[in-house]
Order: sequence, then C-alpha cells, then structure tokens
Amino acid sequence: MKVRITSRLHYLYRSPATLVLNFRASSKGYQTILSESVVFTPATDSELIVTLPEQNRFDRLRNLQGDSLDVSYQAEVEVTHLTLDPESLRAILPSQLDPSVLPFLFPSRYCQSDTLGRFAWQKFGKISSPYDQVQEVTNWISSNVEYLPGSSSSTTSTSEVLTQCAGVCRDFAHLGISLCRALNVPARYFTGYSCQLRPPDFHACFEAFIGGHWILFDATKLVPLDGLIRIGSGRDAADVSVCTSFGIVSPGVYEIECLLDPAPADAPQNGIPAPQALSLG
Amino acid sequence: MKVRITSRLHYLYRSPATLVLNFRASSKGYQTILSESVVFTPATDSELIVTLPEQNRFDRLRNLQGDSLDVSYQAEVEVTHLTLDPESLRAILPSQLDPSVLPFLFPSRYCQSDTLGRFAWQKFGKISSPYDQVQEVTNWISSNVEYLPGSSSSTTSTSEVLTQCAGVCRDFAHLGISLCRALNVPARYFTGYSCQLRPPDFHACFEAFIGGHWILFDATKLVPLDGLIRIGSGRDAADVSVCTSFGIVSPGVYEIECLLDPAPADAPQNGIPAPQALSLG
Amino acid sequence: MKVRITSRLHYLYRSPATLVLNFRASSKGYQTILSESVVFTPATDSELIVTLPEQNRFDRLRNLQGDSLDVSYQAEVEVTHLTLDPESLRAILPSQLDPSVLPFLFPSRYCQSDTLGRFAWQKFGKISSPYDQVQEVTNWISSNVEYLPGSSSSTTSTSEVLTQCAGVCRDFAHLGISLCRALNVPARYFTGYSCQLRPPDFHACFEAFIGGHWILFDATKLVPLDGLIRIGSGRDAADVSVCTSFGIVSPGVYEIECLLDPAPADAPQNGIPAPQALSLG
Amino acid sequence: MKVRITSRLHYLYRSPATLVLNFRASSKGYQTILSESVVFTPATDSELIVTLPEQNRFDRLRNLQGDSLDVSYQAEVEVTHLTLDPESLRAILPSQLDPSVLPFLFPSRYCQSDTLGRFAWQKFGKISSPYDQVQEVTNWISSNVEYLPGSSSSTTSTSEVLTQCAGVCRDFAHLGISLCRALNVPARYFTGYSCQLRPPDFHACFEAFIGGHWILFDATKLVPLDGLIRIGSGRDAADVSVCTSFGIVSPGVYEIECLLDPAPADAPQNGIPAPQALSLG
Repeated sequence: MKVRITSRLHYLYRSPATLVLNFRASSKGYQTILSESVVFTPATDSELIVTLPEQNRFDRLRNLQGDSLDVSYQAEVEVTHLTLDPESLRAILPSQLDPSVLPFLFPSRYCQSDTLGRFAWQKFGKISSPYDQVQEVTNWISSNVEYLPGSSSSTTSTSEVLTQCAGVCRDFAHLGISLCRALNVPARYFTGYSCQLRPPDFHACFEAFIGGHWILFDATKLVPLDGLIRIGSGRDAADVSVCTSFGIVSPGVYEIECLLDPAPADAPQNGIPAPQALSLG
Repeated sequence: MKVRITSRLHYLYRSPATLVLNFRASSKGYQTILSESVVFTPATDSELIVTLPEQNRFDRLRNLQGDSLDVSYQAEVEVTHLTLDPESLRAILPSQLDPSVLPFLFPSRYCQSDTLGRFAWQKFGKISSPYDQVQEVTNWISSNVEYLPGSSSSTTSTSEVLTQCAGVCRDFAHLGISLCRALNVPARYFTGYSCQLRPPDFHACFEAFIGGHWILFDATKLVPLDGLIRIGSGRDAADVSVCTSFGIVSPGVYEIECLLDPAPADAPQNGIPAPQALSLG
Repeated sequence: MKVRITSRLHYLYRSPATLVLNFRASSKGYQTILSESVVFTPATDSELIVTLPEQNRFDRLRNLQGDSLDVSYQAEVEVTHLTLDPESLRAILPSQLDPSVLPFLFPSRYCQSDTLGRFAWQKFGKISSPYDQVQEVTNWISSNVEYLPGSSSSTTSTSEVLTQCAGVCRDFAHLGISLCRALNVPARYFTGYSCQLRPPDFHACFEAFIGGHWILFDATKLVPLDGLIRIGSGRDAADVSVCTSFGIVSPGVYEIECLLDPAPADAPQNGIPAPQALSLG
Repeated sequence: MKVRITSRLHYLYRSPATLVLNFRASSKGYQTILSESVVFTPATDSELIVTLPEQNRFDRLRNLQGDSLDVSYQAEVEVTHLTLDPESLRAILPSQLDPSVLPFLFPSRYCQSDTLGRFAWQKFGKISSPYDQVQEVTNWISSNVEYLPGSSSSTTSTSEVLTQCAGVCRDFAHLGISLCRALNVPARYFTGYSCQLRPPDFHACFEAFIGGHWILFDATKLVPLDGLIRIGSGRDAADVSVCTSFGIVSPGVYEIECLLDPAPADAPQNGIPAPQALSLG
C-alpha cells in the first residue's frame, strides 16, 4: 500500500526557542520512505536526529528567530502491514525474551505497570495465549473506558484512567501497555498518522511483543489498524512527543491529509475484525 | 444481646503530649451502655468529648506526664441489631433525603467519590434497588480486592485501592463508601469492636443510608455483622481515629476481649447470609 | 457596612434533575440579612436547608422541569468585620480547643494535611505566634504558587498544588488549610462573594481559628478581605459547592454585582495591609 | 584505586522462577573489571545480558529449581574517578546536546519532571552555571528531605517525596533527577556499591550531564562520592533493579563487603567537599 501524507504544523514562540519535532514517518520495519520533503517557514537550519534503539526521527531546530514556525511535510511511504495468524503467535516467556525487549516490561512515566499486577492477573491471568490475552485487554479497555476528549491531560497516568474510566487515545494506549507489562507481555507506545480517521489525524495506540513480532492493538477501536503509519515508538508518550520545546512555545492548529493507494474498503464499524494480527515491525 | 468488652491500649510518648482517644462503645442507636469503666495509668485527668452530629465519644488527655499511658476500658453494652427485610428498604432520592444526611454524599479525605462516577454507574448503575446495589458493591469489592495486611498505609485513598486491588478493612470500607456516594447513596464509615474475629479486634466497615436506615455492610466478609459493636461513625477514617495525638506519640500493643451473651452460633464461613439487613441505628 | 448583592445563576439540564444550591449570604456571625429575595425561573418549589454546625444555607430544587433554570438572588446584608489586634490572638493548644473545633484539625477531601507534617513544621514550625505563623503560610503560598486559571480541576488536591506551584483561589485556600492543620491550627474553607474583585465574583479563601476567633486569610492576595461576604464555610470545597447536582446538569454563565455602602477606599495593591486581623465570626 | 567487592545475595522462590539480576560492577567509563567471579548455588545456567545504550550487565537465570538461590559475587575493579574543575563545566543547551543524551531530559516512571517546571525554575532558575545549579538542587534536597528508612515504597514518586519531605537514597536520587530535567539538565539514575558506608551497601544517587560529562551528585550526603562503584545507570530505578523477578520470589538478606586500596582517608562528615566534580564516565 502506498500512502501520501501531508502534514502542516504551526508553532508560536518567543525567541530564542529550540524545538525537537517528531512528525516524520518512520522508515523502520515494514515502512519504506519513497520520497519525503520538509519545508520550514521561515527557512531554518535543522538537524535530523535518529534515536536508538527505536530509530525515531526527530528534527531539531535551534535558535528559532521571529515568532512562529510553519512546518510543511510531505512523504510518500510504502507500507506493508505484516499479517499474521494469531494462532501462530506463541508465548515467549521472560526467560526466553530477546534482551533488547526486556526494558519494555519495565514501568514508565505514564505506565505504572508495577502497581497493576493484581488487577491484571485477576482479570486476564487465566488466558493462556498471549495474543488472546492482549486482545482481551483491548476489549476490556474499550468496554470500560470512555473516549472523552478533555477528560485527561498531559500528566494523566494509568491509575487515573482506571479510576476515572475516561481518556483519549494516548490514555487508552498507556493503560493497554501497563496491563500487558503487568502480565509479562512486553509492550510499547505507538504514535503515527491514522489515515482512516475522518479527518486524518495523529493517533496513538500500542504494540505488544508476541511470538517474536510487535503486534498492533488499538483499544479505542476508532479506526482500522491497517490505515496506521508509524511515526515512532517508545516506552510511552514521553519518548515520542510530536513537539518537545525549550523556550516558551505554543502549538497552533495543524492539518493532516492522507491519500491511500489503493483506497481502503469502507471501514468496518468497530475497527479491524478480530482474527488477523497486524505488525509494522 | 449483651456484650462485655475489655480493651487495653498502650501509648508511649515524650511529654508533653495531648491525646484524643476514641475507644468507648457508642451509646447511640441500638446500643445502650449498661456500665462502663475507664482507668488511665498513671492517673490522668481526662475530658469526655461528644462530637455532633455523630455523638462519637472521645477522651481528651492533656499534658501527659511520664513517658507512657495505659488505658484499661471495660463496658457492658446492650446491643440490639435492628433486623430489616431488604425488600422493605426503598430508595430515597437525593431530592427527598433528610438534609442531615446530605453531607454523606460528599467526597472526603479517603473517599474521592467525585472521581468514581463513571466506574460506579457502569458497574452498578443498572441495579434499581439501592440495597441490592450496595450488596453488589460489597460483593464486587470482596471478589476484586485482596485483604492483605501491610499493603496500604494511613494515607491510602480509594484510587490506590482500586488500582492495587489490595488493602485492609479500612480500605475496603473507604472503597465501599466511595462507590455508594458515587451512586448517590449516602454512606459513612463505621468503626467498632468485632467480637467474632479471632481474636476480637478493632474493625472498620461502612453503613449505607437506605430506606431511612443506616444499614451495615462489610466488604471484607471476615466476620458476621451481628458481632459488631459501634465505637463511632464519620465521613471516613479521618473522623474516628482511635488515637489523634499532639506531640511525639507511638502506639504500643493493644489487647481486646469480648464476651457475648448469648454466645453466638458458629460463624458462617462468609459472614452473614444475605437476606437480612442489619442496622445499629 | 451594608452590601447589596445581586447574583444571577443559570443551569441547563435534562430533566429530571435535583439541584442543591449554595448562593445565599450567610446570616451567621457578623453578617445580618436585612432583606433577601430569590426568584427561580421557571417557578419551582424549593426547600431551604440549613446544615449544622456551619449553618450553611442550601436551596434544594426537586424534579426540575423544562431544560434550564435561572436563579435571581438579591440580598441586602449588614456586614461588620470584626477587627482584632493580632497581638491579642494567643495560641490555643489542642489540649484547650473547644471540642466543636477539633474536626477542623482533621484532613479532608482536598486538604491532606496528614501528609504535610514535615513540610509545615520545617517551614513554619519555629514561629511561635499562630497568627504570625498563618500569616507566613499565606505569604509563602502567595510567593510560591502562581495564580493560573485553568491549571487545576475539581479533583486537584494539596499535593498537586504544592508540586505544580499553580492553582486558583480554591487551590490556594486548600493549601492554606492543609498547612494550618498540619501545624495544629484549626482551619476551614470560606466561600463567599468578593465585592472588590473587578468584576465582583465568587471567591474562596480560608479561616484559621486563633485566639478564639475564626480569622480570615487569603493567600491569593487578590483583594482586600473587608469586601468579602460569607456564603458558607466547611472543611473544604466539598462542603460548600455552589451547585451540587443530581442528574445531567451543566452550569451556564453567571453574573454578580455588589454595591458597598459606604463605598470602599481604593483597594491597596496587595490586599489588606498586615497588622489587622479580620473575622466574620 | 582498586576495589575488591564481595556481595552475597539470597532469593527464595516457588519454582519455576526467572530472575534478572543486576549486581555486577559496570565495566563502562572509568571502571575496569580486573577479575570477577560469580557462583550460583545451586549451580544454575545463567546468561549475561548487556543492555544498550547503558551497558548495564544483567544475569538472567531461567527456570530456577529448588526453592532458593544464593549468589556469591567477587570482583576486583580498577576505578578512576575523573576529577574535574567545576569552573570548567560549561552549560550545554538543549540545542547543542548530543542526541543520545536527549532522552535523559524526558520524564520517567519515578521522575515526573514534567510536573516540576515551575517549582524548579522558581527555586533554581536564576543560577546560571549548571554545575552550581545542580549543586544547589542537591543542597536543597539534603536540607528539606529527611532520610527516613521506611517512609517510602517501591511505588513512591517525586511528588510524594516533595510533599512528605522524606525518603531513602532512591527517592533522593529521583527527586534530584526530576529537578535537573525540569531545568533542562539531562540526568540519570546511578546505582552502585558504596564502599564507604558503614557497613558497605547498595546505594543510589544521580548523575547530571554538564560540560560533556556525567557528574555524580548525591543528595543524601551520606558518604563520599569517591567510594562509589557503578553497577548501572538508567532513567530511574525502573531500569536498574537489583532483581527483576518472574514468578513468586522474595529477596532474603544480603551482605556486601568492600576493600579499597589504597584505604580512603577518614570520610568528611558531610560527604565530599564541594569544589571538585567527580565522574565515572
């Protein structure tokens, strides 16, 4: 599948400001950047930073002059969602996990998995297949947490989402990650463009490491998984902010467009039907 | 039923200290104090304080000398648990509640019911009878929260109990109160002597206001409700600490004995059987 | 001083709703209601509830029909702020406090004074006069917490205010109360009309019990204390919400006017000058 | 300086359990492992895992049999603390930071630096030299937080430490890291052996990235910095637990011995005197 993404971001600041932006499609895994252009207005020197191990791509813009910045990004991306048979995804015990994956079992800023052990094992501990387990985590969140814009903030953590039963995509992802880690299933935060949202938008969901693959899950069930284009991944939202700013900076409105080729079939109402597991690698 | 309670408390302090102690059986509702004696060693002037509206009885001990205090309390109490048919306990809407009861709908120190609206209504909102609703709250807590000494502290609130799924009687009571209030059922904290614990001990549970009565509920299900003797009640544990101290005070070991007359039948294994509602007024 | 207050409140709801409103000037202490009128549109039966021990006056409106309610309130109030010499306000130890005041030493929903002992005593423990101590608490909050509308929510507690160093009048009051209680100075929440704000508005601050009087303190320092008219008081904001609603209710815009007679002198820039202690009883 | 470390760890479990242990001295930076031996009793296959980018060394022990494990570790380590003149350590702005260091500006599980901006800049924002700034952060924590074993738990975060003004070395480190990050100074968690504690013990402190070096700071001021041997570093304690366990595992007592050659001079009472900056690279 080819995707043409256009995004326009806008920032207001009182100079001097430094921005570290994270808006480029990832070229990791099953995504290939066919072409890409970035225009900063006013013209600004930028540095492309690739952070390891996730290969997230950040643009660092230094000592911004003037009082605002426009970012115009265009990319053509070849995306092949790896489709897997859930039955084939066997559990990997912590004793066998690849060491590079171990840190995704640890708690992080927004994912206090260390406090959720009892909760997770009570609710999901009896399911033996980890794919079914995470699918059930996803279903449970979808049924018990209300998608409610404005109900959370940039400091909201797992315990508040669980108590208040409300959040946005970021909070749904954090809760999913926390429950997976509590169940000894490595999980990480996924941020990307969602081409099948109306209108297209940034979106967050999560990936669980099962059977040797990072499998996509989206507890919001807002949109089919196969319209997701990865920007980056990390332990949680703290690792992949669209904008990390130094100085007094306010984000302005932004606009995102997506063109999928071939055009997707009409989206099924509740996201992707269950019996396929998708991975972006 | 007559109950003879003996309790011995012990406090260590560096003088001067002031203690406000809350250990006397309440003489409110269906409890009558037949006789009572309190001996402080060393002998100490004390002042009996009765706080309104709950009529909790506190002993204030001023300017304690020496370095320790022993409290020896004996009381004979006539207790008549009012037994009600749950079917007879109709809902009282907030529009009809007695004004004196309204504050027991408000959130308090350990019971942040204001954050639990969605959670409570999702889980228990469809049950129309408030007695059944609170019974179900009690069952849910009993099934989902582990009674685990040492898992909580004096600062533990509802959200932590819900996240960590563990606590002691105090935490079980706080969670029950919070869920009731979120459901618009007034609820208050109950602290007392539990004569049928082995050994007898202080215990905490909660009362919900249904059908014009304060009905006892105990989500720990550790012990039959009809062996409970009220010491006091309040919005939550903040109102009825056994010991509020000013100065540097440490509680020592304590010892409690109970003699029930007539002796209770052997306790059923999971607390009181369901179809009776008990009240201590 | 005579004050004429006009307030117009507006609520939207889907019937049936019950509202418990708290907008009337208090007739307790140094305030006398000379005349008062309340008009509900559409006309609605209401019940006046006076809660003890604070004598807060609530209007309960039941089974509201239609989809909105307008409340038009007019009152003429005689207000005499008791002016005291701070030097005359001696400490009252917990051992001597009037029992009715003891609960204002306990932690409450938004005032977790039990967690602030070390903080409070480190910063303010060496000040021997309780009036100076609370004055210093007030100054410290004013210097260290930023008044920032939108920085807090209805669930914000003391620990968040202390960490994030931001809040609104409600949060300033809660932090002041918490620090006082941690210092063994009884403190309560004050909500009222602030006639000298531009425009006049609801305002929250706190009262500390010193020398036998409830003395007003306002850590926001937004406005002179002698333009405050009490609506109610309680342990914290949970006790004196302007509107407690049952049903799906949204508050609309409101409007407040005040006429002071005699007109106040121009307000000094940083609130009332220090060396007078004011009380509304 | 040569250090001979002996540590004996002990774990109890119900098999099967997997442990990921982190007890080996790091061979990164200014530390060289001259010799090292590890004996597991009962004999157990283990896998040495080196995590990037920090090069922490973990031993993974799979499918443990029996019911307990003893770990006996001996290492001889050549340690050269790099000593730097604080005057030489110039600020590196976020615009110039090496990209690999950027994640140490992000908030993490125990270090919610995103909530501390106002607090940090109010208190330390006017200090222009970052070394002086972090030194002042360290002094402030040392003066305002009480070292109090038992006052915190494995879930304690920065906001609780700041509110309760108490903690252990781990909490002191987390607060230091949080304040540094809030000030745009990258900071990471340091865990190691402290040879000059009496008795020698595990210890935690933090490193701030200043002038191109990771400089050691210890807000507990319990011990000179030049007796510290690094085990590992990470975003916070979540990355470098001594023991991450899968299965039901309890840690038992442990014992640590250190032999420094040359023997250190008697430790100054309040840790290292100020005017040297130390780094372990």
